[in-house]
Amino acid sequence: MAETSQERRTHRTPFTRVVALAGGVGGARLAQGLAQCLADKALTVVVNTADDFEWLGLTICPDLDTVLYTLAGVENRKQGWGRAHDTVHALAALGQLGGPTWFRIGDRDLATHLRRSELLWKGHPLTEVTRVLAEALGVGPRVLPMSDDELRTRVVTAEGELDFQDYFVKRACEPRVVGFRFEGAETAQASQGVLEALAEAELVVVCPSNPYVSLDPILGLPGVGERVRNRPALAVSPIIGGAAVKGPAAKMMRELGREPSAREIARHYAGTVRGLVIDTADTGDTLEIEALGLRVRAAPSLMRGPRGRAALAQVVLDFGRELAGG
Amino acid sequence: MAETSQERRTHRTPFTRVVALAGGVGGARLAQGLAQCLADKALTVVVNTADDFEWLGLTICPDLDTVLYTLAGVENRKQGWGRAHDTVHALAALGQLGGPTWFRIGDRDLATHLRRSELLWKGHPLTEVTRVLAEALGVGPRVLPMSDDELRTRVVTAEGELDFQDYFVKRACEPRVVGFRFEGAETAQASQGVLEALAEAELVVVCPSNPYVSLDPILGLPGVGERVRNRPALAVSPIIGGAAVKGPAAKMMRELGREPSAREIARHYAGTVRGLVIDTADTGDTLEIEALGLRVRAAPSLMRGPRGRAALAQVVLDFGRELAGG
Repeated sequence: MAETSQERRTHRTPFTRVVALAGGVGGARLAQGLAQCLADKALTVVVNTADDFEWLGLTICPDLDTVLYTLAGVENRKQGWGRAHDTVHALAALGQLGGPTWFRIGDRDLATHLRRSELLWKGHPLTEVTRVLAEALGVGPRVLPMSDDELRTRVVTAEGELDFQDYFVKRACEPRVVGFRFEGAETAQASQGVLEALAEAELVVVCPSNPYVSLDPILGLPGVGERVRNRPALAVSPIIGGAAVKGPAAKMMRELGREPSAREIARHYAGTVRGLVIDTADTGDTLEIEALGLRVRAAPSLMRGPRGRAALAQVVLDFGRELAGG
Repeated sequence: MAETSQERRTHRTPFTRVVALAGGVGGARLAQGLAQCLADKALTVVVNTADDFEWLGLTICPDLDTVLYTLAGVENRKQGWGRAHDTVHALAALGQLGGPTWFRIGDRDLATHLRRSELLWKGHPLTEVTRVLAEALGVGPRVLPMSDDELRTRVVTAEGELDFQDYFVKRACEPRVVGFRFEGAETAQASQGVLEALAEAELVVVCPSNPYVSLDPILGLPGVGERVRNRPALAVSPIIGGAAVKGPAAKMMRELGREPSAREIARHYAGTVRGLVIDTADTGDTLEIEALGLRVRAAPSLMRGPRGRAALAQVVLDFGRELAGG
């Protein structure tokens, strides 16, 4: 096995069991950075499925797709979802036939939803379906949906409760958020693979995804939060200088009466993780975050390009090594 | 309403209630020819659904699609199925994901299957779904699936029984045909719309589609054969000079121990229709066909281009007028 960049840089025993918890774009990018730094078998990415939805009867898993496509290097970087260089001929024809076009699905992307739905209809659990898709896409690290059960985020807004994708795509995150409800939370279980990976993890990385709609659904599954607390765990702040890089995290925080800041992210994850990676723009929050009992590491966290992802991943792994006492 | 070519040519009262029974390509082309000669409301096309199938959980209706696309002028003429100028990006991506690619579905074509399946899942009967699709595609004549119930052709071959599409597409009609079985025939009913259209028809046209796998399923539905026999009805031979223009009709006939000929087609439809349109290449069969009690009209039946379709349709309508005693 070739020496990884972690080995070259740290001259320590490399991690062999890292678990990253991820939502969409931010999580996918850091996961891809970690994949550059670690051996394939050393990385497990646990992905949020609470924003999955049904479209024309097909099951669509936006965060899983973003993670798979990003790890496979076929993601559409500009758009933030779907595959690179995709066409939208099927969707255009569907619109002509009176079908729904609010969720812009490309032709190649559509194949993923068809294949996944086919395998789900045949009775395969989502974990197995995801393994098949990951293998076909040439993804090295293990990618696990958080659960094989249905758990769906409902966004409670000033206009009433909305399906997550209705809020996120159809309404472009416009309605004011009052809270969230996780439909199916009473019964949904983390998959066995997720619980085992967490129990054995040398390091758990909470990726810079939306804390409320991407990470909380994962951390709220029975046994998950507890396992994360029991392992060396760190989070990476999705807020940079008071704004979210991608998505509605900052807007949601404001509407929930919380300031979009690294220290607010620290408050959110305090008690769950031991350390927080913040952007160099947010070092003014360091003392307050440390006062919450968290250790802090500042680094440029925008992850521009593959090198930016690997650089942040290396900071995460080095910090994780310190937190793990290695 | 503009004067139709039938009015111009015959100087008779034009037909106002013609029902065409159609399978795929040959039926679609004659239906399109009839549509050129008749007012939109004067034509109802009843389409075979016995070769419908499930693909990745979507319901695909090949004959309905061919008829709809041909009437809308968006059919792929070279291929014999699917839409013109289509791409196959979704299918290519599906193949990379390990999905089935034996049925070559284009991206725009896929939209039809998605939209149809969506509406079926929502509980709409196929008749209503077809109306929605036809309207969206700008199809003028009424297009009716033969039934809202499931009836599926199984091809009994020397190698055992095969699903129709397995035989037709996957195996390219290679296995030797021994017979046919229509799964669901005990319970499938013609739709009310089909029975009413037939009861009121001034003329029934059995299109030049495959007699065994396209027309027999329609004619075999309870009440359909009887209604056709009670109306002025004619068939158009799908055999020209001992060969089928498209598809496996001639090969099937040989394997069933019947010669591929116009007179064999006449034997098949004798008792159901009153007249048979044969190709000018087959006029040698005229006496034998008349001996079966059928009247005969010979015409070039290859239907090259829209003009060829309209020309054959006009022959059919003129002949039909004679059979109806008008």
